Amino acid sequence: MKQENYAMLCDFYEFTMSNGYFLNGFYQKTVYFDVFFRNVPDGGGFAIAAGLEQVMDYITHLHFTEEDIAFLRSKQCFDERFLSYLRDFQFDGDIWAVPEGTPVFPNEPIMTIRAPAITAQLLETFVLLSLNHQSLIATKANRIVRAADGRTVLEFGSRRAQGASGAILGARAAYIGGCGGTACTLTDELYGVPASGTMAHSWVQMFDTEYEAFKTYCEYYPQNAVLLVDTYNTLKSGIPNAIRVFQEVLVPKGITNFGIRLDSGDIAYLSKKARKMLDAAGLQNCKIVVSNSLDEYLIQDLMAQKAEIDLFGVGERMITARSTPVFGGVYKLVAVEQPDGSIQPKIKISENITKITNPHFKKVYRFYDRETGKAIADELCLYDETIDDRQPHTIFDPIATWKTKEITNFTARELLVPIFQNGKCVYQKPSLLEIRTYCQEQIALLWDEVKRFENPHTYYVDLSAALWNVKQNLLKQNR
Amino acid sequence: MKQENYAMLCDFYEFTMSNGYFLNGFYQKTVYFDVFFRNVPDGGGFAIAAGLEQVMDYITHLHFTEEDIAFLRSKQCFDERFLSYLRDFQFDGDIWAVPEGTPVFPNEPIMTIRAPAITAQLLETFVLLSLNHQSLIATKANRIVRAADGRTVLEFGSRRAQGASGAILGARAAYIGGCGGTACTLTDELYGVPASGTMAHSWVQMFDTEYEAFKTYCEYYPQNAVLLVDTYNTLKSGIPNAIRVFQEVLVPKGITNFGIRLDSGDIAYLSKKARKMLDAAGLQNCKIVVSNSLDEYLIQDLMAQKAEIDLFGVGERMITARSTPVFGGVYKLVAVEQPDGSIQPKIKISENITKITNPHFKKVYRFYDRETGKAIADELCLYDETIDDRQPHTIFDPIATWKTKEITNFTARELLVPIFQNGKCVYQKPSLLEIRTYCQEQIALLWDEVKRFENPHTYYVDLSAALWNVKQNLLKQNR
Repeated sequence: MKQENYAMLCDFYEFTMSNGYFLNGFYQKTVYFDVFFRNVPDGGGFAIAAGLEQVMDYITHLHFTEEDIAFLRSKQCFDERFLSYLRDFQFDGDIWAVPEGTPVFPNEPIMTIRAPAITAQLLETFVLLSLNHQSLIATKANRIVRAADGRTVLEFGSRRAQGASGAILGARAAYIGGCGGTACTLTDELYGVPASGTMAHSWVQMFDTEYEAFKTYCEYYPQNAVLLVDTYNTLKSGIPNAIRVFQEVLVPKGITNFGIRLDSGDIAYLSKKARKMLDAAGLQNCKIVVSNSLDEYLIQDLMAQKAEIDLFGVGERMITARSTPVFGGVYKLVAVEQPDGSIQPKIKISENITKITNPHFKKVYRFYDRETGKAIADELCLYDETIDDRQPHTIFDPIATWKTKEITNFTARELLVPIFQNGKCVYQKPSLLEIRTYCQEQIALLWDEVKRFENPHTYYVDLSAALWNVKQNLLKQNR
Repeated sequence: MKQENYAMLCDFYEFTMSNGYFLNGFYQKTVYFDVFFRNVPDGGGFAIAAGLEQVMDYITHLHFTEEDIAFLRSKQCFDERFLSYLRDFQFDGDIWAVPEGTPVFPNEPIMTIRAPAITAQLLETFVLLSLNHQSLIATKANRIVRAADGRTVLEFGSRRAQGASGAILGARAAYIGGCGGTACTLTDELYGVPASGTMAHSWVQMFDTEYEAFKTYCEYYPQNAVLLVDTYNTLKSGIPNAIRVFQEVLVPKGITNFGIRLDSGDIAYLSKKARKMLDAAGLQNCKIVVSNSLDEYLIQDLMAQKAEIDLFGVGERMITARSTPVFGGVYKLVAVEQPDGSIQPKIKISENITKITNPHFKKVYRFYDRETGKAIADELCLYDETIDDRQPHTIFDPIATWKTKEITNFTARELLVPIFQNGKCVYQKPSLLEIRTYCQEQIALLWDEVKRFENPHTYYVDLSAALWNVKQNLLKQNR
């Protein structure tokens, strides 16, 4: 299931353009494309890059089958020589990308592709789809996890996901963003995200009484039993039955890791009532798990109201990133290599100023304050520039250029790392747990001001003077 | 790719419950589950059922591999006899469902599953995921198609979809909802949804001049050439260059099917300007295609402003159903067969009144007025009731029961049709084009009042007197 060939998951125009590049000889040109995004979902201060591993899998397995080629032939608009070219097609370029789990900001490349024109063009749809989807969910999950302020958040949304890969890889991305686990068994089997779960309402309904349902469950699963208490009446039936069963079945065995789950009604009210009833019964250890239309806003409110919650199960609002279900990553041509090996920068101007691209083959640096360790700013520069962090360095706002700042006592780190070189994978994939840990560490290096949900501080993403000049010159040429 | 086995795309609690049913003997019980939803996305008046074909594929291929069983064993909470049971597991029940493309309403079953308890439980996640995802997109696409009022709408959203199946099957669902085609090549190859597309900004950027880019394109693709005119300056460069190329390359050959595409700027303003420029050049036949953050609301506004648009390309807001990206279908136990063969109805009460279920094994009738052909109301009744449409029939509101209505001169049609019987598929799958046509025909039978985007009339979904009584008795028993 991880090794599917998604070569044909490709916008049709990639094929018409590629056929054109084949016919006019452009297929021999080497081109540079950047992947970047323009806005953080939900108005947040940063996003989390994810989906790289699936891009790597995609590229490794990328090929066109005879059926694919026969299908394209049937469209009657492709040259036979182009179709032959596709028969032997494989990825033969270079890719740089930010590691999964990196906090990223608008308008900076999170991936750069250097490849022959047809190769680069045919990657666009899947590369964007994978990075957009998983960055979206990792970013949303991280907001929810931060709202929960140390309490565990589990991903429960498979049934409301937008398709199978939405569920499977959404749960992977949610784990990168900080969730403690998932309900999706397949994501555990494929990616090692811990899957767990206990009972649905149907379990309770199957028995003649709720008591019997709870008792049977605790007998079969004495460890980590979480009883769903809202099938009939939470306060009058569900919690009293749960307490009775815990005391009859689990407490005598010395078992203390059990809980109840609230899935309807007013969670703040019910959780406080539940806590009192459980404590009064001597079950201070009993955990309270809640679910039902949760997201970062409701969780923040519940926390402010001192709801008695130990663990959040979050479904549809995380797995679809309900409040902003789109991550707007784009794939833009930034440069073309000339026959003499020089790199010609390219720009797209557009009617919307915000859609103007940053041209050229670039590096991305992140600057960290040596004293606090915090990230200060990112800077995009030309591929052949090097920033020496032993010298003071002046950054400036690319729009309001008179706004400058000299930074000293900093370290500079390059964000884009080599993933493929000459078609060969050169990146040692970290484990998913390593990605998740790296993500938490990197977010800890952001100022709190950048992490606010509402109206966060805009982190600086600046251009080097050299890159700024290249861009201005291209804008003037096209005026 | 169509034949993947998604047995493990299953919430973990389905396995813990199933293991419990195995140990306590409940696995021998035959149970009934309904799939239904509670709210139409975007506050609409109806939804469109979709995703059945993928449920059928899933069930047909459903099995657990040795790797799956080894994985479950590693979780150390399942009985070996249960794991052996899974080794030979296959679907052995009955399924009824509304055909894909049927307009459907809240609280009526769109699928009913009758199967042994473990079988029915293990289907839940994937069945919901498939029906929720495709019904969501078909419903959204249909809103957008209705806003376009006869102009063609194409699905362009793969790169922003929530994962690969979000793109592939989202495009399938969008076609059911009325889109004319997709940009997703794989959806054409797998499902026959017509894929098309012409050029991205990168094509234009690859050439030294926009004129050269357009000319080369029209030479290679003289038929249906659509030139993207906003890479540099739409009115000063893009449209003049397009006109020049059409006149130099296509008009002399007598070709008339070409167009331009606007992808940024104010679409209403630019399309009217473009129309005038094209008409003044004698290119009245030139079509204007627009894209860029479109949805039913923006399209409705553009139409009201008499924008000059022939074709809409809709991306992220359709493929993610951006404004309401969740379809809340649920899977609820409604009955359990007793050893004597009688069917015991089951109810879930919940703290939220709207979450109370309609119990029992049911039929769904739709009533059509014989005179107008329009749909009047739906009625849920017990499985062994039959409604005789040659007799007057009284329907009543299940909440405000004093509100009654006698209907006469009507036809009654059962919506749920047999899909599987005793584990065998008995449903002849219609073609996708047949589904799309059926969908349009059925929507034509709804009153306009139900089709409003804002505050639509609530279509009647009533209960038979017998079913109403069953529900009231269960509520009383649980009081």
